[in-house]
Amino acid sequence: MTDPSTRTEAALGRAVDRLTADGCPPRLGEAIRYAVFPAGNRLRPRLCWAVADALSAPDPVATDGAATALELLHCASLVQDDLPAFDQAELRRGRPSLYRVFGEAVAVLAADALIIGAFDEVGRTAHRIPDRVGLLMCTLSRGVGSPHGAVAGQAWEAESAIDLTEYHRSKTAALFEATTAAGAIAAGRDPEPWRAVGQWLGRAYQLADDITDEGSDATDGSDTAHGRPNAVQELGAASSVAQLEQCIGAALRAVPDCEGEARFRRFLDTFLERFRTPDTRVAPQRVDARPVMRHLWVVS
Amino acid sequence: MTDPSTRTEAALGRAVDRLTADGCPPRLGEAIRYAVFPAGNRLRPRLCWAVADALSAPDPVATDGAATALELLHCASLVQDDLPAFDQAELRRGRPSLYRVFGEAVAVLAADALIIGAFDEVGRTAHRIPDRVGLLMCTLSRGVGSPHGAVAGQAWEAESAIDLTEYHRSKTAALFEATTAAGAIAAGRDPEPWRAVGQWLGRAYQLADDITDEGSDATDGSDTAHGRPNAVQELGAASSVAQLEQCIGAALRAVPDCEGEARFRRFLDTFLERFRTPDTRVAPQRVDARPVMRHLWVVS
Repeated sequence: MTDPSTRTEAALGRAVDRLTADGCPPRLGEAIRYAVFPAGNRLRPRLCWAVADALSAPDPVATDGAATALELLHCASLVQDDLPAFDQAELRRGRPSLYRVFGEAVAVLAADALIIGAFDEVGRTAHRIPDRVGLLMCTLSRGVGSPHGAVAGQAWEAESAIDLTEYHRSKTAALFEATTAAGAIAAGRDPEPWRAVGQWLGRAYQLADDITDEGSDATDGSDTAHGRPNAVQELGAASSVAQLEQCIGAALRAVPDCEGEARFRRFLDTFLERFRTPDTRVAPQRVDARPVMRHLWVVS
Repeated sequence: MTDPSTRTEAALGRAVDRLTADGCPPRLGEAIRYAVFPAGNRLRPRLCWAVADALSAPDPVATDGAATALELLHCASLVQDDLPAFDQAELRRGRPSLYRVFGEAVAVLAADALIIGAFDEVGRTAHRIPDRVGLLMCTLSRGVGSPHGAVAGQAWEAESAIDLTEYHRSKTAALFEATTAAGAIAAGRDPEPWRAVGQWLGRAYQLADDITDEGSDATDGSDTAHGRPNAVQELGAASSVAQLEQCIGAALRAVPDCEGEARFRRFLDTFLERFRTPDTRVAPQRVDARPVMRHLWVVS
């Protein structure tokens, strides 16, 4: 079987081709492609594939469908985050943000098309997993929607009083939780034990992002500039880094017994490197806080 | 069985309760409810139910799921249409538009939550129709998404050169086509013969809307104010009304033979009344153009 990264890029390419096929308004088509390519780190497809691969004989078509859907949902969230009503970000991945290139209306519609396209990807693979496609669909919708998914997380930022527990759970961790659960569902296995793995990785990811944000110069896109809750401001730098390590440790402990457990742990070693610097590629408990602070990998 | 309207309101109520359940950011929850209630004309759920009911023994749970999804998608489109990047509408159904009450960020997120919630509704009923849930999902996603659904239709308005055929097909007709197809799928029947019924009804609906828009005083929300293509400007008033009647006639001719055909035709008589005035409740060919021009029912 082709390696997951190559598969994921190919599957995303096919999905984007479908969304921008003949008859698509040209600017909308260009915007959809701009949102998905060139590749970001594709964390969610990689994690989804790694979980499926840790279980016996995942269905590759169903796993591609889930992995593609997760990435399209993530890309939609980035397009929306950059809109004037949210971060009003000029740049994304070193290029002008999508709304700066295509305008706000096309940006909103491109995000819609990506969200809807994500569910289309799952619908297309339903015949492969008819007994569990509903579970997969609802796992994705709840990870990304309301009341506890990424949309709700974003909406907490518009509240005058923030429920921090809900905010942290929903903003990033919910979609990571959906990612590990989706990988298990695509492999025909019980997703429940995998939810905790995604939840802890998502919390770690958010902490890593908060620490990076706080360590950077204040920019238009920073938490400070937008008055967003930030772990470093709430807890201090040292506690945030300690919490990051605790979350990583909890994720590692949560990995269920399974056929491909050793392979999955090797995957996590590499996956988690992105949360740290090259010189701290060691077990979590031995990570020094300072290089983490300086070099933490940035979200998008 | 409870009548479809009562069922639809109850099903929408349950869907909104789920989307706004404990833990939901309060303003997002209020905005979601504001977008769905009080009821508009619920044209799409009514049409979906009527098709399912025209066929033998529709699955009520699957039909509720499809009808609810269609209405949530429609409500999301209205929220987005009113945004500053689109119509910048102050009013919707005689109340302040959603973004005027809750702000732009919450409006964008509420629309997201409604779109995602629509697919969640279908996912929830997948166990009732495991052999055709994928078809239902893709029917909805293609009716509303890119390249040929409502999102694409809206995106044509941001193009410098409009493909009018694609624009008219996608802007309104695609979701009506998905509506009749979804009703047939929920009843376990071939959706293909029902697509033309939805397509013609959608075209009629768009023409009715264009005629109403053109007959009204120019307002912030009018096609003229937004430079949108409008059938009356393209074809003239008389030709637009004639086309409206041709579309209605074509919809009536497209109704497939089926067990409940007489019942479905009676439904259409009532349904189509909304496209005309009380004093033109007669067969299409006898409708006078002028009262249609004066009194055509307005979209939302």
